[in-house]
Amino acid sequence: MLHTARAPPSSQQFLAFTSHSVSRASSHPKRRWVARQASSAPPSLQSQQASGELWRRDFPILDQSVHGHRLVYLDNGATSQKPETVIRALDDYYRSYNSNVHRGVHALSARATAAYESAREKVAAFVGAASSREIVFTRNASEAINLVAQTWGTATLRPGDEILLSVAEHHSNLVPWQMVAQRTGAVLRHVPLTKDTEELDMAAFHDLLSPRTRLVALVHVSNMLGCIAPAAEICEAAHAVGARVLLDCCQSVPNMPVDVGRLGADWIVASAHKMYELLESMPPWMGGGEMIQDVFLDRSTYAAPPSRFEAGTPAIAEAIGLGAACDYLTTLGMHRVDAYERELGAHLHEQLQAVPGVRIYGPGPEEGVGRAALASFNVDGIHPTDISTILDQSGVAVRSGHMCTQPLHRELGISASVRAAPYLYNTKHEVDVFVEALKEAISFFTM
Amino acid sequence: MLHTARAPPSSQQFLAFTSHSVSRASSHPKRRWVARQASSAPPSLQSQQASGELWRRDFPILDQSVHGHRLVYLDNGATSQKPETVIRALDDYYRSYNSNVHRGVHALSARATAAYESAREKVAAFVGAASSREIVFTRNASEAINLVAQTWGTATLRPGDEILLSVAEHHSNLVPWQMVAQRTGAVLRHVPLTKDTEELDMAAFHDLLSPRTRLVALVHVSNMLGCIAPAAEICEAAHAVGARVLLDCCQSVPNMPVDVGRLGADWIVASAHKMYELLESMPPWMGGGEMIQDVFLDRSTYAAPPSRFEAGTPAIAEAIGLGAACDYLTTLGMHRVDAYERELGAHLHEQLQAVPGVRIYGPGPEEGVGRAALASFNVDGIHPTDISTILDQSGVAVRSGHMCTQPLHRELGISASVRAAPYLYNTKHEVDVFVEALKEAISFFTM
Repeated sequence: MLHTARAPPSSQQFLAFTSHSVSRASSHPKRRWVARQASSAPPSLQSQQASGELWRRDFPILDQSVHGHRLVYLDNGATSQKPETVIRALDDYYRSYNSNVHRGVHALSARATAAYESAREKVAAFVGAASSREIVFTRNASEAINLVAQTWGTATLRPGDEILLSVAEHHSNLVPWQMVAQRTGAVLRHVPLTKDTEELDMAAFHDLLSPRTRLVALVHVSNMLGCIAPAAEICEAAHAVGARVLLDCCQSVPNMPVDVGRLGADWIVASAHKMYELLESMPPWMGGGEMIQDVFLDRSTYAAPPSRFEAGTPAIAEAIGLGAACDYLTTLGMHRVDAYERELGAHLHEQLQAVPGVRIYGPGPEEGVGRAALASFNVDGIHPTDISTILDQSGVAVRSGHMCTQPLHRELGISASVRAAPYLYNTKHEVDVFVEALKEAISFFTM
Repeated sequence: MLHTARAPPSSQQFLAFTSHSVSRASSHPKRRWVARQASSAPPSLQSQQASGELWRRDFPILDQSVHGHRLVYLDNGATSQKPETVIRALDDYYRSYNSNVHRGVHALSARATAAYESAREKVAAFVGAASSREIVFTRNASEAINLVAQTWGTATLRPGDEILLSVAEHHSNLVPWQMVAQRTGAVLRHVPLTKDTEELDMAAFHDLLSPRTRLVALVHVSNMLGCIAPAAEICEAAHAVGARVLLDCCQSVPNMPVDVGRLGADWIVASAHKMYELLESMPPWMGGGEMIQDVFLDRSTYAAPPSRFEAGTPAIAEAIGLGAACDYLTTLGMHRVDAYERELGAHLHEQLQAVPGVRIYGPGPEEGVGRAALASFNVDGIHPTDISTILDQSGVAVRSGHMCTQPLHRELGISASVRAAPYLYNTKHEVDVFVEALKEAISFFTM
């Protein structure tokens, strides 16, 4: 049980925004809004709890039993579920207008191209990008970070240049920089955690930052600790010493309002944004169809971004699905989603903390800038895998393992943990079901 | 109208087999077979034409009108359509067991992992690979070729080493080698076409091959000329001088039986196979989750193939869809598909050749080892884009442009062409509809 997969995973991310994650939302936005407006209580007076109950109806996968129990899906840090609208957008594509995009003259191709590029615009609007040309669709966040590392990193970094990461980074924001450091002679530095609250140590961050720093690459919301990094402070300080900033927003974009302008980063992965001028200056990475301008036998010229970085036939249906997910979340309202998740996360934290022998990692909901709704934890004397296995028998799906953050786990003196990560379609009742099942698991093992 | 997209495009390819292409098949295999067995005539006595009529019913997208005419979809060289079984496999995944794969303990994750790895086994069986460990899922053929170029190529090629390509390669089999040649000092050589039949000049191939040749990378079936390369002869000669062979099988695997053992290549792209021992020796490419063994802050060790080359969360649903497509094609029987396409291709060639002013590129159906069913052509004095635009008004979908083969078009003294590429669900009647519409287009422009 060495390895769990990454936070918001997807077959389609915009440099690299995850469709699996964005699609953490619900379908039939119009019907839903009509229903809400027609209800006697105005939305603002409806309890947040009611939001979760309402939203979850739009996720067909949640309506099933596992081992004779109603499914309680709390593995949203690994992959969240798709609402009906997103599933239908995919289905409709394959049944009605599946065709290769760009430069096709016939009707199906024109329709597919329009839908694909419209999805890029929806994603740009969703994260507040200045232009859809700033959005590059990649397969997953790993590919997006590799793209920046292998193009900008290889072309820019010199021996002695410093790359500032943190000990809490996902493997996908460690390994590509290790590779580029080996190749260029750049040096890796790592921001530690505060001892007490287990969040990014900002004093240490400022100490580590220097004119040698060429890049700061940090996770916005930790997929293990749940802590939220002060993005504006990070970007301002980094830019003051001339460094570029890449933020891994896999766990923030689907869960809270994220405005790329306000964050101020140069690249945002899992939120897709980066400054277009910077993209223009980056050399191509993968060669092939779609990314070229003119090809001769011995040389080629390359297309402008984003095409330059999208070699070959893209994942068209998945991009369209991502667009549908952005539509849906926009209709729900990210502030509403954020508020509900904060309430849910606080309840989870409170209930979990009350269980004897449980140790939750990361800051509390009231500390620092707060934390995301997820909670990674361990129970005295019981292996995380055993806990998740027993919980599964009660229909409760959680992750166990190192969550693709082995160095962070070593830092915390553990090899694995359990993670419960609710999303907008989970309810307080489900949190209670999870906590009860956990208590039973603990009695089972400590009997 | 400079650019058309590549042959068998997909969001999920196995190093790099295209789900869009494999899914060029029909659904409900069991029902279908039962129906066939129940008919009074045994399958062998049914006309091939009947196969196409029967198979097309399983492709929901084909049952639509475009500009008031029944859709005649002949753009299968760019993307083919998905049968009902594949669409349902995707839908079922998102509605029933969407979850991240590998090392997840709970029920949904276990089911998703089993389905994902089962798809890898289906693909391996479909192309006759020795083991599913030889199959690497990539986003598209471009990525697969870049993977080989940037790992094996960068690690192996030295100044003066030669890479032998052909003038008929797709951009995705040209640009990655141009990039790696620039980086390593390797030299690119290009096999020309025969003047008369416009297929690979095998005499020139043998002349160009030398002990300096480290790699032969050739297209198996040209997406523009339709010519079929003598793969066994190529691999044997290349191996005799110590060179590796990569074959671009994007246009062969979905259309004819392809057995990787018999082909003898080291890597097959769009047919996903490559020798496992060779994979073992290749360094990692993209860093991130899933591709690691142990991650420390400053260094990492890497997983064994295929995981080593699948960084980040994979396209799970798409892999499962690809597995369903392999199932379907296997049930139809690739020999049957091949036979039907040959018949259809011969009819297309014959009808098209009879149209005054039409010039078809590549060998005739009776020349050399024959040709695939597709036909690229031009009409005297009419621009390809105008032809495809007019054909679209009659509901006929064809491609126009350079088909991602600019150098080949230059070689032939043209800048663009029109391509009609039928697949198993097309019929001779549809070919006739296309040819009639083409004649009308020609009269329109030459009036």
